[in-house]
Amino acid sequence: MPTTDDYAFLKGHGTENDFVLLPDHDGTVHGDLDPARVARLCDRRAGLGGDGVIRVVRSAVLVDRGAVTAHDAGASEWFMDYRNADGSVSEMCGNGVRVLAHHLVTAGLVDPAAGPIAIGTRGGVKTVTPLGRGGYAVDMGPAVLLGETRVGVGERTWPALGVDMGNPHAVAVVGDLADAGDLLVAPDADPGLYPRGVNVEFVVRRDERHVAMRVHERGSGETRSCGTGACAVLVASALADGLAGPQGPAEPVRYRIDVPGGVLYGTWEPSGRTTLSGPAVLVASGRTDL
Amino acid sequence: MPTTDDYAFLKGHGTENDFVLLPDHDGTVHGDLDPARVARLCDRRAGLGGDGVIRVVRSAVLVDRGAVTAHDAGASEWFMDYRNADGSVSEMCGNGVRVLAHHLVTAGLVDPAAGPIAIGTRGGVKTVTPLGRGGYAVDMGPAVLLGETRVGVGERTWPALGVDMGNPHAVAVVGDLADAGDLLVAPDADPGLYPRGVNVEFVVRRDERHVAMRVHERGSGETRSCGTGACAVLVASALADGLAGPQGPAEPVRYRIDVPGGVLYGTWEPSGRTTLSGPAVLVASGRTDL
Repeated sequence: MPTTDDYAFLKGHGTENDFVLLPDHDGTVHGDLDPARVARLCDRRAGLGGDGVIRVVRSAVLVDRGAVTAHDAGASEWFMDYRNADGSVSEMCGNGVRVLAHHLVTAGLVDPAAGPIAIGTRGGVKTVTPLGRGGYAVDMGPAVLLGETRVGVGERTWPALGVDMGNPHAVAVVGDLADAGDLLVAPDADPGLYPRGVNVEFVVRRDERHVAMRVHERGSGETRSCGTGACAVLVASALADGLAGPQGPAEPVRYRIDVPGGVLYGTWEPSGRTTLSGPAVLVASGRTDL
Repeated sequence: MPTTDDYAFLKGHGTENDFVLLPDHDGTVHGDLDPARVARLCDRRAGLGGDGVIRVVRSAVLVDRGAVTAHDAGASEWFMDYRNADGSVSEMCGNGVRVLAHHLVTAGLVDPAAGPIAIGTRGGVKTVTPLGRGGYAVDMGPAVLLGETRVGVGERTWPALGVDMGNPHAVAVVGDLADAGDLLVAPDADPGLYPRGVNVEFVVRRDERHVAMRVHERGSGETRSCGTGACAVLVASALADGLAGPQGPAEPVRYRIDVPGGVLYGTWEPSGRTTLSGPAVLVASGRTDL
């Protein structure tokens, strides 16, 4: 390092959900982005380490190639070409989109004074609002209630609320976050309600409109933070506290949600949409030949 | 990133034992190197991630400051100022010293054609010989036999050989590397022989002069590779195979030692000294403000 084959990267995280960013504005550096390269980059010993890779690329480039739909790109200038740590394509990540927005702002690729930033993703266009000091609010879309269910760990089970945030969640209120044990395997859940698995959140109340959570993400295990999980917890908490009905709240309801990797704030709007606010941090930039 | 407070780093690994390198040739960038900064750098989510930090600094700088002894620096030009991931000072690391040597060679800070490279460490001067193509041989010093002992995991126990490589080891031959289980806690060992804990290696024979090992390092848990552990396994294997007596072999004995993170080769010399050869890889370089 460096070699003739090296390329630029950045490393960053949102509430300790961490990412390798690959600037590739015109798509000429990485082409279709080799899944094996993504896996090498995310390897935490032999690579740079990360929960995923975010390629920073102009939306028009991917639309022209037929790699994403015109709907998903919308009127966005920049696209979040997100890959999981194993190299597979993923729709989007509520923590990662803040980190991408922070890079776009700090690198001068967008003007934060121009208002909310539209970012294309495979889950549609996301609107990200800079809050200053590295904080960003993300429109996470509507929450859809799936009804009551149960989740279990070992011999213990808890009632839970099913919430769909584009991906499936089950939120269980517990007496102590330690009750869920070491979460080395996926909690038990109803395969009828969740045929393709579920993300399970365990929640305790800390104070008025302030909760703390742990999350087991399907396919990943316990993680330091989960953006859609925090929104599911927001919705379940507002319902449990009587601050909203199944159709949503009469006025915006805001909760502080402590995750193992930091602090998030969620707002449930009368429209049924959810907004998640939290920090984005870029820790390094450089070049790699991975 | 970058900010006015950022500084250079490199990331690399030897058999997946990974390190953040901090070029600080004259000691002016990092001063005494803040342990909290080391911990931030090694954090695998909020930082760059690593098993440790290696500051690349001229030996004379640290001797002049009284930070290391003239004995440990010897006639070396460069010093391996090694820190564990928690920020504490450590003597040296058999995988890390290869990575440091590779950086010195690829950055043009030493001339590999001039022969073996002397690198100062808090465990004394180490001699590293470039083998080409990113391979390096390290003189790991003499092995001292501690005699027979036993180690245990759960209900199972195995006979083991105690070996001191500057740090204590217990080497157990097992039928299958899976026999040691998930190694989430330290194996049981004789506190009389190992009052300050022990690194435990589990070994299987693969072929003639070819073994495979897993290692539980005290204070770190199971790791992808351990240089001194590989040397302890070399010595125990040569003794078990009748290729050497307790005083060492009559002629050099060489073993291939597969570790979870790659392949190492160890040689036990008639002098009683051990040499460990293996790869060094640098994957990235850049700047950080951690």
